[in-house]
Amino acid sequence: MKKIGILGTGMVGESIGTKLIELGYEVRMGSRTANNEKAMEWASKNGDRASTGTFNDAASFGELIVVCTKGDATVSVARSINPDLVKGKIIIVISNPLDFSKGMPPFLIPELTNTNSLGEEVQKILSLANVVKTLDTVNCQIMVNPNKLSGPQTMFIAGNNSEAKKQVGELLEKFGWNEIVDLGDITGARATEMMMPIWIRIMVTTNNVQFGFKIVR
Amino acid sequence: MKKIGILGTGMVGESIGTKLIELGYEVRMGSRTANNEKAMEWASKNGDRASTGTFNDAASFGELIVVCTKGDATVSVARSINPDLVKGKIIIVISNPLDFSKGMPPFLIPELTNTNSLGEEVQKILSLANVVKTLDTVNCQIMVNPNKLSGPQTMFIAGNNSEAKKQVGELLEKFGWNEIVDLGDITGARATEMMMPIWIRIMVTTNNVQFGFKIVR
Repeated sequence: MKKIGILGTGMVGESIGTKLIELGYEVRMGSRTANNEKAMEWASKNGDRASTGTFNDAASFGELIVVCTKGDATVSVARSINPDLVKGKIIIVISNPLDFSKGMPPFLIPELTNTNSLGEEVQKILSLANVVKTLDTVNCQIMVNPNKLSGPQTMFIAGNNSEAKKQVGELLEKFGWNEIVDLGDITGARATEMMMPIWIRIMVTTNNVQFGFKIVR
Repeated sequence: MKKIGILGTGMVGESIGTKLIELGYEVRMGSRTANNEKAMEWASKNGDRASTGTFNDAASFGELIVVCTKGDATVSVARSINPDLVKGKIIIVISNPLDFSKGMPPFLIPELTNTNSLGEEVQKILSLANVVKTLDTVNCQIMVNPNKLSGPQTMFIAGNNSEAKKQVGELLEKFGWNEIVDLGDITGARATEMMMPIWIRIMVTTNNVQFGFKIVR
């Protein structure tokens, strides 16, 4: 696997994209329009293995696709992807179904939580792809560099396809994650997405985004 | 503070009650009926500082009250309490709003999650008491003995009254909790209650209930 497509040009897309370039991958950052300013600025700083395009360009380019669009936009982005472009491919969904429309703290979009999740919804929309939910329980700086904290943390992974989870697990190891807990099928995304409220509370009350969760046994 | 009332006769009530007896408190375990079999069996094993009664008996007896009734019964239990009996008292709500009616894994009761919580609901019902949400993110064996695990974990606490949280924090320390994160007002209960899905997933996929969450910074 050499080529990775990223959907989303926010802080998460930028962090993941930059880390993947450092690791030697070719990365195409996709957005709604082909000439998104943030995507082009990112590409200009990351050498000739970095490129930009539309969401469908990035989905077509990547052998693996990372979704890090805003939570309330992710369903429509998934629907805008030509399903044939992602058939049999792995799609990592980092996005969480947060709704900031009523201010801080955000709540989870009711129809995408508790008995559903954004991970499941993307899997339903792009049913021929293998969706894996992971990385959504930490800030983007920790996602790609967990070892910058004072000790090891746990990363969770959920998805219907074991081979897809294995390959994503190998990528997580390259990012520095050593303790990965497999939560089972894609409905496990409900569990990690519902950790957003505790993550946000801790962020707000400790005024710090650089932390992770460790499962202590 | 010498006297504690416990509402609920399940595994959590039994574990907390037994620990409080060991710590020297007088404990009354309350249930729907005054002569609940499980409560009487617990009291018979715990010496003359252990007693039983109705929910209102336990609420009246306790200078502090611990609620550990089943999640889907807790609102009706709170409504059955005479508000005057708990005026100015601390009420620790451990119960989580889990609905097992559709099998495993349970979901969270929709009207008690995301933009509400069981902690908040009990605070609304018993508005003259000081509700504190804590201990709900670990199994009952870990609640009263966190040091049995391989390393320290984090306990969360939420509530509107700072003095109440301080007193509960001192009790948690007696249980062995050293790292307590204050999540702010009682709406913080949304965050800890929404950790139930990840707790249950980890329990199911690792076949182990003895674990806790540590925040790594």
